[in-house]
Parts: sequence; structure tokens; C-alpha cells
Amino acid sequence: MQLARVIGDVVATHKDEHLTGMKLLVLQPLAADGAAFGRTLVAVDAVGAGVGETVFFVRGKEASFPFHPTWVPTDAGIVGIVDHWDLG
Amino acid sequence: MQLARVIGDVVATHKDEHLTGMKLLVLQPLAADGAAFGRTLVAVDAVGAGVGETVFFVRGKEASFPFHPTWVPTDAGIVGIVDHWDLG
Amino acid sequence: MQLARVIGDVVATHKDEHLTGMKLLVLQPLAADGAAFGRTLVAVDAVGAGVGETVFFVRGKEASFPFHPTWVPTDAGIVGIVDHWDLG
Amino acid sequence: MQLARVIGDVVATHKDEHLTGMKLLVLQPLAADGAAFGRTLVAVDAVGAGVGETVFFVRGKEASFPFHPTWVPTDAGIVGIVDHWDLG
Amino acid sequence: MQLARVIGDVVATHKDEHLTGMKLLVLQPLAADGAAFGRTLVAVDAVGAGVGETVFFVRGKEASFPFHPTWVPTDAGIVGIVDHWDLG
Repeated sequence: MQLARVIGDVVATHKDEHLTGMKLLVLQPLAADGAAFGRTLVAVDAVGAGVGETVFFVRGKEASFPFHPTWVPTDAGIVGIVDHWDLG
Repeated sequence: MQLARVIGDVVATHKDEHLTGMKLLVLQPLAADGAAFGRTLVAVDAVGAGVGETVFFVRGKEASFPFHPTWVPTDAGIVGIVDHWDLG
Repeated sequence: MQLARVIGDVVATHKDEHLTGMKLLVLQPLAADGAAFGRTLVAVDAVGAGVGETVFFVRGKEASFPFHPTWVPTDAGIVGIVDHWDLG
Repeated sequence: MQLARVIGDVVATHKDEHLTGMKLLVLQPLAADGAAFGRTLVAVDAVGAGVGETVFFVRGKEASFPFHPTWVPTDAGIVGIVDHWDLG
Repeated sequence: MQLARVIGDVVATHKDEHLTGMKLLVLQPLAADGAAFGRTLVAVDAVGAGVGETVFFVRGKEASFPFHPTWVPTDAGIVGIVDHWDLG
């Protein structure tokens, strides 16, 4: 999983039916020091995240697990909102 | 998922039988600012997209979900046509 | 999926039994402009491709779909021979 | 799998229910020479690892195998604590 | 799949139980010209490979196929020892 900041959202009227009603958010992944790192992506939201929040997301088929047994065709999903992280 | 622009299509007479009749499009991924970012790829189309449109696509086995229960051997699929996206 | 040129083949006498009889080809991925792009890889061939041909291949577990129900341990498979592609 | 050093942990009160009680650790992947290499990530811990330890972790759906049959939505999981590694 | 040279092994007393007895090898991926290319990784061995040998390995869940039906939590596995490869 990776840390990310929610930086936007996507509006898509015409999409796969299993994505209907899903919130599609634009994420900027973050490195452990909090800096933006790597390419932006679009993720479905499984936890009620919003723009400006720091989250962690999962890639791959695992992103559809929270919606099981629906086979949501997504490869990225927000699975937690980060309170804080600590480097030891 | 990633944002992308549809920039072309692929003609392949000889292909795996489960790809028969599938539209194969060439995509250029886009960063959140709309700029081309990363390598082009070939994706199957599940939503009726065409050259010139902005879409979002899914990577991995998830790309075959819209065609379930057919086991389409693809690792990239267009699952939505983007109306617009907003950076917050 | 990605476009690629078949540039060689691999001989491996000692391999996982489910790979027995499979043709193992070396691929050079191509960008949409036809230029070599990214690292070479080894793929199984599901469509009868040969050295010098332009193909498209799939990554991940999807590469074993054409051999279903055999669980071929491959993460890359050629699924089509490209006649041509067009950039719109 | 990759070698990594555990460099921190993540606190997330609000997360997918299947992640409840899971320890979420921040990892810095290591190259074979022990140097930091590549981007940091967040992994679930299946073996009782802690900050400062050297581990190896798995990416992808495989990261949820240790928790089978629970479908933990993670794409990275620590599956071993490294005693040492040797380059031959 | 990718070509690689086996360059070392990993000792990990404390690991996921499904990895017990598995040989864990350190791999250096190779490009088609035989040069080291990309980051080192740790793979399980399904074919009896050893340090110094040239192999090809598979990434992803496919790496656990040779151990089916055991759900080995690995994302990289050696599936063949290379006799030679030829560029056409």
C-alpha cells in the first residue's frame, strides 16, 4: 500500500456499470517523508475519504475486496484514512 | 486506474480467440495536470470509447471483469469515459 | 497490453512441468511510435508467433488464460500478432 | 519478494474493516547490497516484525494469503524476518 | 518472465509457515544482452536452481502455481534454468 494525498475527483457519466455510484478520486502518492512521489492515479473510495485528506490505498485486484462479492473493475482503492505516521 | 487519451487502434487478425471482436485501442496515460505521462499501452474497450477521447482504464486481471465470465486475456481495459476531472 | 517485437527465444531443458512444450520468446516492448521502450522480457506464445514479428502481449496471471484450465506459471504471454496499428 | 527495512508505522483509525487490528508498517526496500532502493510503502505484518528490523515482503494479492480465508485488502505484506543474506 | 542470475540466498528463521522449507534466492534480473538490469529481488525456487546459474522467473501470484494447492505467499518464483538464449 502507499500513502497518498487526495487531490481531486473524476466525473465520468459513461462507465462500467459496476462503477456506478462509486466515488472516483485523484491521488498523489507520497513518500515516507510526506513529499509527492510518483505518478497520480484514480482510485475508488471505500472509506469515505475526501479531497485534502491523507490516505493509504491498495493496488491490484485487492482494491475490489471491500466491495466483494461485486466484481468492481478497479485496480486502486482507498482503504484507510491516515491519522498520522511515525518514522522510528 | 489512470487517466489516458485514446490515441490509436490496433488491427490484429491473428489473436487469442477470447479477444475476437474486442476493440483494441492505444492509450497514452495522462498525469493529473493533463500532460502525457508514462508509456503507451494497448487496452480493450468495455465502454465504447474512441480515438481522441479521454478515458480511465484499469490494469491487471480486473480489466477482464467487465467481460465476466469470459476469461479475456487482457491486462488493461477502458472502464470509463471522462467528462472532466477537478483538482481540489 | 503492450506492443513488442519478438527478438529471440529461450532454451531451458529444466523447467516447471507446466511449461513443458511451451515456446518461450524474448520480447522487446515498443512504444506507440514503434521505438523500443523498456526492458526485454520472456513470454510464452499462445498464437504461433516467431522471431521478427510484431505482437502484443499481456502481463500477469492473465497470460495463463489461453492455457486454462492448466495453471501455467507465466506472467507474460503473447496473445496476438499485429497486422498494423494506427495513430489517430 | 524484496528485502526491506522497517522504518515506521501508520496509525489509521478509520479504515476498511478487514484491516482492523492489523499492524501497518512503513518499509524502505533494500537492494542486495543493503542500500535503500526504490520508494517506501506501507505493508501489513504477518510475522511480528518491528521498526528497525530487516524483513522481506511480498507484493500483490499474495500479501493477503497469510490471512486466508479473510480477504484482507492489502497489496504488500511482510512474510519473513531476515537473519542474514549472502551473496555468492 | 525475466532472465536473471542467481546471486545469493536469504536465511530467515522466522517466516510465514507456508514458506517453511522453501529455498529463497537473491536474483539479479538480466536484459536480453545479458547485462544486469533493474533491481535485485528475492524469489522462491521451484526447479532446484543454485547460486551462479542463469534462470527465468515469474512475478505475481503465478509464482505460487508450482506449489499449488498450497497458497505460498510469494510474488516471485524461479520456474526454469536457462541453457541458452538466442537473439534472432
